[in-house]
Amino acid sequence: MIGVNEEQAIAILTAYLSPKKGRQVGVELGIGDDAAILKTPGISQVISVDAAIEGVHYRRPWLSPDELAGRAFHAAASDLAAMGARPTAALTQITLPRDISRSQFQRLAQGQAFAAAELACPIVGGNITGGRSLDIVTTVVGQPWTKQGALLRRTSLRAGDELWLIGCVGLARAGLFLLQKDSLVDERPQTFRRINSKVGAASEKKAALEKLLRESRLSKKRRLSALRQLALLSFRCPQALVRSGRSLVGRARAAMDVSDGLAKDLHHLGRGSDCCVVVDATSLRRAAAPSAFADLCEAEGWEFDDMILQGGEDFCLLASGPRSRRPRGAQVIGHIEKGRGVQWNDAGQASALPLGGFHHVSF
Amino acid sequence: MIGVNEEQAIAILTAYLSPKKGRQVGVELGIGDDAAILKTPGISQVISVDAAIEGVHYRRPWLSPDELAGRAFHAAASDLAAMGARPTAALTQITLPRDISRSQFQRLAQGQAFAAAELACPIVGGNITGGRSLDIVTTVVGQPWTKQGALLRRTSLRAGDELWLIGCVGLARAGLFLLQKDSLVDERPQTFRRINSKVGAASEKKAALEKLLRESRLSKKRRLSALRQLALLSFRCPQALVRSGRSLVGRARAAMDVSDGLAKDLHHLGRGSDCCVVVDATSLRRAAAPSAFADLCEAEGWEFDDMILQGGEDFCLLASGPRSRRPRGAQVIGHIEKGRGVQWNDAGQASALPLGGFHHVSF
Repeated sequence: MIGVNEEQAIAILTAYLSPKKGRQVGVELGIGDDAAILKTPGISQVISVDAAIEGVHYRRPWLSPDELAGRAFHAAASDLAAMGARPTAALTQITLPRDISRSQFQRLAQGQAFAAAELACPIVGGNITGGRSLDIVTTVVGQPWTKQGALLRRTSLRAGDELWLIGCVGLARAGLFLLQKDSLVDERPQTFRRINSKVGAASEKKAALEKLLRESRLSKKRRLSALRQLALLSFRCPQALVRSGRSLVGRARAAMDVSDGLAKDLHHLGRGSDCCVVVDATSLRRAAAPSAFADLCEAEGWEFDDMILQGGEDFCLLASGPRSRRPRGAQVIGHIEKGRGVQWNDAGQASALPLGGFHHVSF
Repeated sequence: MIGVNEEQAIAILTAYLSPKKGRQVGVELGIGDDAAILKTPGISQVISVDAAIEGVHYRRPWLSPDELAGRAFHAAASDLAAMGARPTAALTQITLPRDISRSQFQRLAQGQAFAAAELACPIVGGNITGGRSLDIVTTVVGQPWTKQGALLRRTSLRAGDELWLIGCVGLARAGLFLLQKDSLVDERPQTFRRINSKVGAASEKKAALEKLLRESRLSKKRRLSALRQLALLSFRCPQALVRSGRSLVGRARAAMDVSDGLAKDLHHLGRGSDCCVVVDATSLRRAAAPSAFADLCEAEGWEFDDMILQGGEDFCLLASGPRSRRPRGAQVIGHIEKGRGVQWNDAGQASALPLGGFHHVSF
């Protein structure tokens, strides 16, 4: 195998990431100097960092290099989505082991370029070093969508507000479990998943699968097969819900993304406020995933509630706000009351939701 | 050994890094939400990222955890110094292996807090994940010092300008070599260097050593011993030359920090311009390190020129500008001519300086 050194890697990245069509909005100076220079609009800027660490967040046989790049980018951008912010610039630190080939790195750079274009968030700088594992650390910078500069924080709960879920939760965890099951027999942890499809084809595939799953006359076998594919795609190619985040601005009083697991993040949402987050189990089960997800859980021997409550890397949004301001696409999964902590209401039975959900499957 | 998990690590960091005295300049919302919010002054912002990777940039026996934290922070801030920018906020991604103890992590957090205070650059967010090596990725954000928003780029060379060096170069490489020599017999790569002194005592120690080395009546043995200590400190506790960077604004036409090695970075300075960077070897040798450095090189069997030309992690600044505007502390090491590349003038002999310097010691 012919590896790629740091100088070559920088040249590849620069080639893929340099802007082709004039200057980028919000960027005064991109890749190439000691630091990037951002134009600032005179309002607040939002900044966050996230990591994709090999052996912790992924293993090579689970992803292609471009999927890894896209996943790392969207995971970081999801934090800005949750702030109701518009991503404007990103920086990436890549730790590059010697056994990464030039063509693998090219595919990774293509994945970064695709995600940057998809999110209209140019990569303006970064750093490449050697290392033992292929890790990507992404810093994202954003701005409020409006000149008024409104942003969404986690902690502004108010009793009487609704609790909203935007997007699915649980599918990515299902995808992870399917990959872990497969990788028990995997012998080559250094080998990336090989794919022939073009970079960034996941969105179309996802849409096609979701459409297929809405068909009522699907056989159970085909339904399960479609769900498995959807679960794998949810893990491999998550999407930061930037547009949904925008739709929450001026409507939600509080918002955050789910990345640590829904149960844990429900606790994060309430933390520090004098409010209790009340989850309606029936509504959550209906909202969290396609209806056939229960069949997949049954077929695989997973606890349905556990998959949802532990689910994290779908990067759905959790928000709360007044009923009159609920945006399209937000599904009601509970409400806010005076009090503390998180309450789980299941068929008339109320109990405190533990931090880790009711069951904890460790892996 | 009792390790530290991610939740505990976040609690420790939050305790050490939360602002004690009112709100921080330039920070609207710090640690705790999905992202940090920065106040922007209506002028440009500068942003950069840098990494300290275990096994690549350092080994544990070489540093104490607070030295590691300080080193990672200053290395990142050095890029802002080189832009003539004022650091205003930082984010840190920490990859945390299981064998890091709670007290080691506390010391690391103390080191981060000290560096943040030293550079007046609060840590406003970050991310902690598990992983195989203890890696710190630091994103730094800064602003121009003046309302006019002037910043220093690499590429604005002009024939007739002087070439300036600010700070030393070569000492950190000497420190690295001393540590590598010692670590050949080191059997415990997982063990941090133990120190009893308080966090951040390095600056005073450095100043004391430099004062000692200026004494003319020092015995050779004591001079070498002081130089060894200074070299180790230069590697372990480098300082981002933020104030020097500020002094270059309005004076230098181009500036960058030296982090890849002086020879390589001299090439980076010229790249893309129609100018040739001409280095005067005699001036450089005099400017790069204390005069006794040649003695240390001789005693250790290192090539003096090689130590300087390959030296990188002292984070000195390289700049060029008109003679009439040379700031205090900038030492002339050459000039700019029409042409291309980097020229090495040694005792009347001119030759092209290779990218890697004249000798390349690999390690």
